[in-house]
Amino acid sequence: MKKPSIYICLVHYPIKNQNNQIITTSITNLDVHDIARLSTTYGLAGYYIVQPLNRQRELFQELIDYWKKGVGANYNSHRARAFHKVRMVASIEECLQDIGIDKEPIVVATGANMQGNIGYLQLRELAETKDILILFGTGWGLTDDITYKAHYKLDPIVGADDYNHLSVRSAASIIIDRLCCKKWW
Amino acid sequence: MKKPSIYICLVHYPIKNQNNQIITTSITNLDVHDIARLSTTYGLAGYYIVQPLNRQRELFQELIDYWKKGVGANYNSHRARAFHKVRMVASIEECLQDIGIDKEPIVVATGANMQGNIGYLQLRELAETKDILILFGTGWGLTDDITYKAHYKLDPIVGADDYNHLSVRSAASIIIDRLCCKKWW
Repeated sequence: MKKPSIYICLVHYPIKNQNNQIITTSITNLDVHDIARLSTTYGLAGYYIVQPLNRQRELFQELIDYWKKGVGANYNSHRARAFHKVRMVASIEECLQDIGIDKEPIVVATGANMQGNIGYLQLRELAETKDILILFGTGWGLTDDITYKAHYKLDPIVGADDYNHLSVRSAASIIIDRLCCKKWW
Repeated sequence: MKKPSIYICLVHYPIKNQNNQIITTSITNLDVHDIARLSTTYGLAGYYIVQPLNRQRELFQELIDYWKKGVGANYNSHRARAFHKVRMVASIEECLQDIGIDKEPIVVATGANMQGNIGYLQLRELAETKDILILFGTGWGLTDDITYKAHYKLDPIVGADDYNHLSVRSAASIIIDRLCCKKWW
């Protein structure tokens, strides 16, 4: 039997803004780079970027191709390898279709203010037998609707006190490390 | 007795480039933001940015002041709070002086290809009684000289296979989480 896989999905729509309205955010260059490098370091199966705006997908596909096949690939071959994990899609549905409907991955929502219903040890265990898709929100986080539809809500990262405002790059790094790292404790 | 403190130091000089030469790298905007937010989330005592070029320190001090006191502070008060942890210094020596020579923090070097001599559990334990300063290199990492002079070399983050090219933002996030998080395992 094939080893199960973990996928990351970075969502730019539908997303909440500061005032709890539903918006589309822009793709940012370092989200693409940092999370691609993270995904490759931890051997994830794929890194999906959800962006409904065609022009944005095209622009960033060009950037990815530069590092995969263009001048960038000669300058830094590590970057080329990382970018083979990245897929641009228009919606979360397209991401699920691309993974393969037969795979039926367990969808896990993340968020700083979430009331979690699964912990890191539990999810590590689940990932031994099931494919897992982890959703990360940009802006002010995933919408309630997306969170509600997910199979699980992951326990949020808890800091030293009430302040909990990590960038999505930091949050994704910490969560993937907790789920995929070799045991160090 | 005062609880000991953990400090982060992001080094832009002396740093290695791709060809093992000693260089100065530029401060990047998202290193300032992401690691400030990380430091505040985990209750660190300070986040030092080592940059010998005056003009760069001035430029980024302006940026920090914008978020601490300017228009940015009204737009996003979380960002203002995060930036109170950030200090610009010209050298690692100035960072140590600012922490206070009497504190004699334990200096810990980090790096992806390091032969570590301290693990995460050990360093968590040490941090209960001693102040700790963790050095992160930009570019292709801390110089051998800096690493050699540190009290400890932290075990590198190990990924799924031979690929290990995290951004410094990701590496700092993962390492601080491992050292400071509440036990989840």
